[in-house]
Amino acid sequence: MSLAFHHIDAAVRRALAEDLGDAGDITTAATVPVTARSRTVIAARKPGVIAGVDVAKHAFAVLSDALSVTVKVPDGTRVTAGEVVLEIAGPAHPILSAERVALNFLGHLSGVATATAEIATAIAHTKAKVCCTRKTTPGLRALEKYAVRCGGGVNHRFGLYDAVLIKDNHIAAVGGVAAAVKAARLSVGHMVKIEAEVDHISQIDEAITAGADVLLLDNMTPAQLADAVKLVNGRAVTEASGSITKTTAAAIAESGVDLMSAGWITHSAPCLDLGLDFK
Amino acid sequence: MSLAFHHIDAAVRRALAEDLGDAGDITTAATVPVTARSRTVIAARKPGVIAGVDVAKHAFAVLSDALSVTVKVPDGTRVTAGEVVLEIAGPAHPILSAERVALNFLGHLSGVATATAEIATAIAHTKAKVCCTRKTTPGLRALEKYAVRCGGGVNHRFGLYDAVLIKDNHIAAVGGVAAAVKAARLSVGHMVKIEAEVDHISQIDEAITAGADVLLLDNMTPAQLADAVKLVNGRAVTEASGSITKTTAAAIAESGVDLMSAGWITHSAPCLDLGLDFK
Amino acid sequence: MSLAFHHIDAAVRRALAEDLGDAGDITTAATVPVTARSRTVIAARKPGVIAGVDVAKHAFAVLSDALSVTVKVPDGTRVTAGEVVLEIAGPAHPILSAERVALNFLGHLSGVATATAEIATAIAHTKAKVCCTRKTTPGLRALEKYAVRCGGGVNHRFGLYDAVLIKDNHIAAVGGVAAAVKAARLSVGHMVKIEAEVDHISQIDEAITAGADVLLLDNMTPAQLADAVKLVNGRAVTEASGSITKTTAAAIAESGVDLMSAGWITHSAPCLDLGLDFK
Amino acid sequence: MSLAFHHIDAAVRRALAEDLGDAGDITTAATVPVTARSRTVIAARKPGVIAGVDVAKHAFAVLSDALSVTVKVPDGTRVTAGEVVLEIAGPAHPILSAERVALNFLGHLSGVATATAEIATAIAHTKAKVCCTRKTTPGLRALEKYAVRCGGGVNHRFGLYDAVLIKDNHIAAVGGVAAAVKAARLSVGHMVKIEAEVDHISQIDEAITAGADVLLLDNMTPAQLADAVKLVNGRAVTEASGSITKTTAAAIAESGVDLMSAGWITHSAPCLDLGLDFK
Amino acid sequence: MSLAFHHIDAAVRRALAEDLGDAGDITTAATVPVTARSRTVIAARKPGVIAGVDVAKHAFAVLSDALSVTVKVPDGTRVTAGEVVLEIAGPAHPILSAERVALNFLGHLSGVATATAEIATAIAHTKAKVCCTRKTTPGLRALEKYAVRCGGGVNHRFGLYDAVLIKDNHIAAVGGVAAAVKAARLSVGHMVKIEAEVDHISQIDEAITAGADVLLLDNMTPAQLADAVKLVNGRAVTEASGSITKTTAAAIAESGVDLMSAGWITHSAPCLDLGLDFK
Amino acid sequence: MSLAFHHIDAAVRRALAEDLGDAGDITTAATVPVTARSRTVIAARKPGVIAGVDVAKHAFAVLSDALSVTVKVPDGTRVTAGEVVLEIAGPAHPILSAERVALNFLGHLSGVATATAEIATAIAHTKAKVCCTRKTTPGLRALEKYAVRCGGGVNHRFGLYDAVLIKDNHIAAVGGVAAAVKAARLSVGHMVKIEAEVDHISQIDEAITAGADVLLLDNMTPAQLADAVKLVNGRAVTEASGSITKTTAAAIAESGVDLMSAGWITHSAPCLDLGLDFK
Repeated sequence: MSLAFHHIDAAVRRALAEDLGDAGDITTAATVPVTARSRTVIAARKPGVIAGVDVAKHAFAVLSDALSVTVKVPDGTRVTAGEVVLEIAGPAHPILSAERVALNFLGHLSGVATATAEIATAIAHTKAKVCCTRKTTPGLRALEKYAVRCGGGVNHRFGLYDAVLIKDNHIAAVGGVAAAVKAARLSVGHMVKIEAEVDHISQIDEAITAGADVLLLDNMTPAQLADAVKLVNGRAVTEASGSITKTTAAAIAESGVDLMSAGWITHSAPCLDLGLDFK
Repeated sequence: MSLAFHHIDAAVRRALAEDLGDAGDITTAATVPVTARSRTVIAARKPGVIAGVDVAKHAFAVLSDALSVTVKVPDGTRVTAGEVVLEIAGPAHPILSAERVALNFLGHLSGVATATAEIATAIAHTKAKVCCTRKTTPGLRALEKYAVRCGGGVNHRFGLYDAVLIKDNHIAAVGGVAAAVKAARLSVGHMVKIEAEVDHISQIDEAITAGADVLLLDNMTPAQLADAVKLVNGRAVTEASGSITKTTAAAIAESGVDLMSAGWITHSAPCLDLGLDFK
Repeated sequence: MSLAFHHIDAAVRRALAEDLGDAGDITTAATVPVTARSRTVIAARKPGVIAGVDVAKHAFAVLSDALSVTVKVPDGTRVTAGEVVLEIAGPAHPILSAERVALNFLGHLSGVATATAEIATAIAHTKAKVCCTRKTTPGLRALEKYAVRCGGGVNHRFGLYDAVLIKDNHIAAVGGVAAAVKAARLSVGHMVKIEAEVDHISQIDEAITAGADVLLLDNMTPAQLADAVKLVNGRAVTEASGSITKTTAAAIAESGVDLMSAGWITHSAPCLDLGLDFK
Repeated sequence: MSLAFHHIDAAVRRALAEDLGDAGDITTAATVPVTARSRTVIAARKPGVIAGVDVAKHAFAVLSDALSVTVKVPDGTRVTAGEVVLEIAGPAHPILSAERVALNFLGHLSGVATATAEIATAIAHTKAKVCCTRKTTPGLRALEKYAVRCGGGVNHRFGLYDAVLIKDNHIAAVGGVAAAVKAARLSVGHMVKIEAEVDHISQIDEAITAGADVLLLDNMTPAQLADAVKLVNGRAVTEASGSITKTTAAAIAESGVDLMSAGWITHSAPCLDLGLDFK
Repeated sequence: MSLAFHHIDAAVRRALAEDLGDAGDITTAATVPVTARSRTVIAARKPGVIAGVDVAKHAFAVLSDALSVTVKVPDGTRVTAGEVVLEIAGPAHPILSAERVALNFLGHLSGVATATAEIATAIAHTKAKVCCTRKTTPGLRALEKYAVRCGGGVNHRFGLYDAVLIKDNHIAAVGGVAAAVKAARLSVGHMVKIEAEVDHISQIDEAITAGADVLLLDNMTPAQLADAVKLVNGRAVTEASGSITKTTAAAIAESGVDLMSAGWITHSAPCLDLGLDFK
Repeated sequence: MSLAFHHIDAAVRRALAEDLGDAGDITTAATVPVTARSRTVIAARKPGVIAGVDVAKHAFAVLSDALSVTVKVPDGTRVTAGEVVLEIAGPAHPILSAERVALNFLGHLSGVATATAEIATAIAHTKAKVCCTRKTTPGLRALEKYAVRCGGGVNHRFGLYDAVLIKDNHIAAVGGVAAAVKAARLSVGHMVKIEAEVDHISQIDEAITAGADVLLLDNMTPAQLADAVKLVNGRAVTEASGSITKTTAAAIAESGVDLMSAGWITHSAPCLDLGLDFK
């Protein structure tokens, strides 16, 4: 569940610049002595799964190398309300100035991890895995994909560039699933997987024969999915999509599909409530 | 409700680069003839308030100047499920390659506008306005603040730089609300407003006398808020915060406060569901 | 008088890249042994007020972490000719290569601080403060606004974004001062101050009644200003502008205005003469 | 006197972002109808030499492609007070929002050109030329060097990278002018000129013999300069520096030197007063 | 063989800035009238395969929108010595200033395409394809990978991020090929292919059973490769690497491998000689 | 042979981002324990001249400050096959993730140095020096020019901005070599050298008289070059160009020219083969 430094650094600096602007933290500058020191913790206000501790830590580090920041809970941990996630101690100015940026990242990413974990838990008794989509918040895809992994999910492709996903419009353009899969197989390199969207069970054989590695079974009922899985019979990876919620997940997973993809875990997961407290 | 071009352009280019990577849209390149042309629309799948049409439009424009993109519904409009928001026609390649970026922006910003409008509608019979906070998605603050305006809300400060907001920790550092407000008044320029957080009604006179322009009344009941408003009696702007939801909003607004601030309308608003359809 | 690190770092790196280009410091590379070490000081050649020591220090630090740079005189200090401001010791190469960038920043910002202090001193017997404008050197606004504070001035708004300043053309567009102020009050958030330019004393009551927080009294004589201040009678902050020089400042300040804004302290302040000497 | 587009574009966009911030031009948005159109001119308020019309023009162009901007006076022109430099017509919003950025560039660069022209005029009866130094405003060197050319000056080296200038500290490090010049001649490419600072007339022969192309005669009196020029006798280019002002320039130039370099024409030239007027 | 605009634009602007610096094209500015117009062609001086015409075209377009640039030969075309690739007509200044940047890109990318085509031609009678590696010129990977496609090759993974390639050191760390492949299968998403390096034929079954999609057969003789291909028997894609040259390629391809990867086609391909001629 | 930090840092970070993308090094993350530590060396596989050790070192340093990287062989050293250039020890993850970027830089730059050294060695018995051109890899000019110096060559101009080189088309535009040189002398500053291309021996006197510092003698035979050198007789620096190879170099150098410029040493030098080995 690693997250490369260059993903963190640019995002954190952009967010700090966005919050500090040209005049800086004028409230703290006016009211808090520059010599003031504080001991603070970031704690969860609600239960959830943590993601982004290194991002939060970096927000403090960029503003001051005099701060001591200790991660108490690694990413991927399920915390209870009140549990301490980070301890930050040192000069009060950079703590106050970085607080909101650190919390905004940590809350957002932990929200994604928590939403993912809800589905992952609901389907833990099956072999299915929950996965993400390209429906992410613009500019934060690398971080959100990481948060999905923290929540127990797996990643779908990261962008248009790293895997083929043939949908309706591509199929329509080239005249059929088989033609589309074959065209992709000819065009892309041997290190690229090909997934094809299948709307009717009748397209499954055609897609597999043409060389699809993965089948996207969109908006099918659990019963239809079970039929599809049976027909596929291990010849391709199967991915269900459409209306995957905490409530519906178990039934869908029990159909035997390998993956279940859900856009909302990245684009609509509520922020996990965390706060910074002075000791 | 204007949105400066430089806010749009950098965000859109960053998102397109994030999605296209070094290899580009390999699916479309493999399956769709470069000469193919399409007529498409972006339509709402659920009712809501639209924000971000110029951002979505720009995503297509960056990839091709051969596309015709028509805005059918200006930002701030309440749409029904099925209503067309944008029409895009021209070469199929750039339409398919920009589709997800355009939808990610439009869905996210319309989600913020829709959440804001829920509160705004609930309090429309009062003089109170709903406003945002600094609890925004890192990197998207300018766009989200704009979406709040589209939803009928008003903006709180944009960052640490453009207004003073004195909270508990600042007060503790300097030894009292009055001392903090006075310190701020001495330090910041004459074009900067000063808001002070007030936890007990007993601090109100002290804060106003010291020169606070705005009072933040945090986590008070409607009854406490009404008492506070009466005591303030127009000498300062009043802002309620804490637990502002569609359900609670009306009672809080009826207390007579001027503003009600809610973090969730930016950090936890669900995406508005929109999709791109080929004609 | 703090200056956030991100204001310093980008400006310093841009200036170093501008000076070093692709070939670097070819003179030093050709003539000075890489093992040479030096002890140097930056000293004032003329009296003035210092601003920018951390910027100058950072110019050396970026080129080498083997240098010891000591600030002898904090920003805001009035120095005499010959007084040492910084001591730099260590490898000669980075000292010689960063010298000009460090001096260009320090001389420019100290020039702004010195010009500001000239006015501040001239009006020290009154309650008036000197403030800056948006007439700054492109790309250096955050640094110049900071230098104004170092010189004993206060900051006006930082840009078009953080406060409203209604001028002739806005008033003409909307049909009067009162209409313009009311339109602004409706449009901008509650954390934004509104200033209106007043050309005739007859507009003062209208502007205040409409809700202006600050009045800009442009190009009035001291006598006219005194009349205006009397009429305002504490209902708004008053700011005089136009022809504020070391010579005219006292008379204007004695009119009772709160602020006096001068563009020349940022756009035309002569550089303070400083030099680097080897020991 | 050309100025490459990439010098203009980055500087203008940085300045616009600096002025517009995240919230944009909130005054214009609040008070001026988006449909309002204006006819405006930028005119000189004081006489001077113009530089930067394309930079100013670009500031308007970046904000709107619906504006018509006409350059009435090319760079390098001497204007009288009241003379129109640019005409801008079209939507009022982008005119008002770009006005200050355009004027800040035009005033600063025209100030540099005007200062340069003062010296150039004073020495026009001699063969000497006025030239600039590396004492420029950080981040604006390319533009200021261009403005020097507009004012009738010539450019010294642009940075540490494009020419060798051997000063005291280099000479001390290597043990003499001749040694330093020879070391440079060995080290740098054949397309790089070498200048050596000469403090005593006794060093001149040594420097020339070692291969110096240009001699920097620092802080010499006109009489000393005349002696030096006689001694050099065309074997190297001669450059005088130190205390070059409008008053002293003629006497220095009449010594027969080829160049006279002055730092103040870039670092301390007062802004030329220009303003934007609505018709 | 498409190349997204964002790959071209940033690379071209960086190269132009690198060549023009702060002073611009001082030779052309000094010698060529700004009104001069030219008709020019870029033609091959040696035979080869063209790649990068849109990159070259963009170099001219960035410097002037008054130029007419016509592509005579699309990327992927084999040209003879003397054949015209691009025609450029219009103002002489931007043609002369962009010439070198355009040629540097076109020569480098066409060099990669030509080298690739040499191998592709040598193995055209087999089913094998030549593919590239991550041994690319830093900063130009997207362009060089594109040039490989223009030359008739296929792309291996674009970076560390889009596919798994398990080499010696990974295998050593985890204790065997099978363990490494299984670990990868558990860790990466379902859209990611896994390749394992196989040094001995004895590891092939193990790797395939563990789930490898592709086998990298490093430094094997054609005979060893043929044995390996027979053993694999279609259960995985086979890729040969090591010493793939124009001379050795045919024998290796005839072993029956699917892919042959060569680092030198990107890191050591000689530039294709092209020149710009005035008509 | 120094190389400024800012040349290294931006290039290295761009290359790392290019290789790591949004998902990072997924192979290492999946297969190597985060606690694993390694001792590795980068060694030459073929003999050559090393350039870029600090660039390679920085690639490791950017990914982890826990690595110990020791340079065993400074830039400019001729190494034998097998010789160790760098030792890297510490956490295995960053070593594996930075390996390819480090090798790509080191191999490319050492290739340039090795090619340069081949020519430099061939002409070591003469006074001639080998120099580079502007035919460099886009984006890597500063690094390649540095590598040329490491190989014993000297640098020609770095771009269009730092020296004048008058070629055929400039001469044609202005009507003769003399006119072109004179126009340049009038236009450019006194710190800029002027080179003129001379196609016929008959132009030499004209160019020198007009003030050319350097003559470019293009595509002349050794005999023609010798005649030219005799005619020039020390009045200008002489540079031969065209068909400078290891084989032809000695004869050309023996003509007595000062410089010999070769494009291929930067644009077509084969990569030096180096590899990273685990101990």
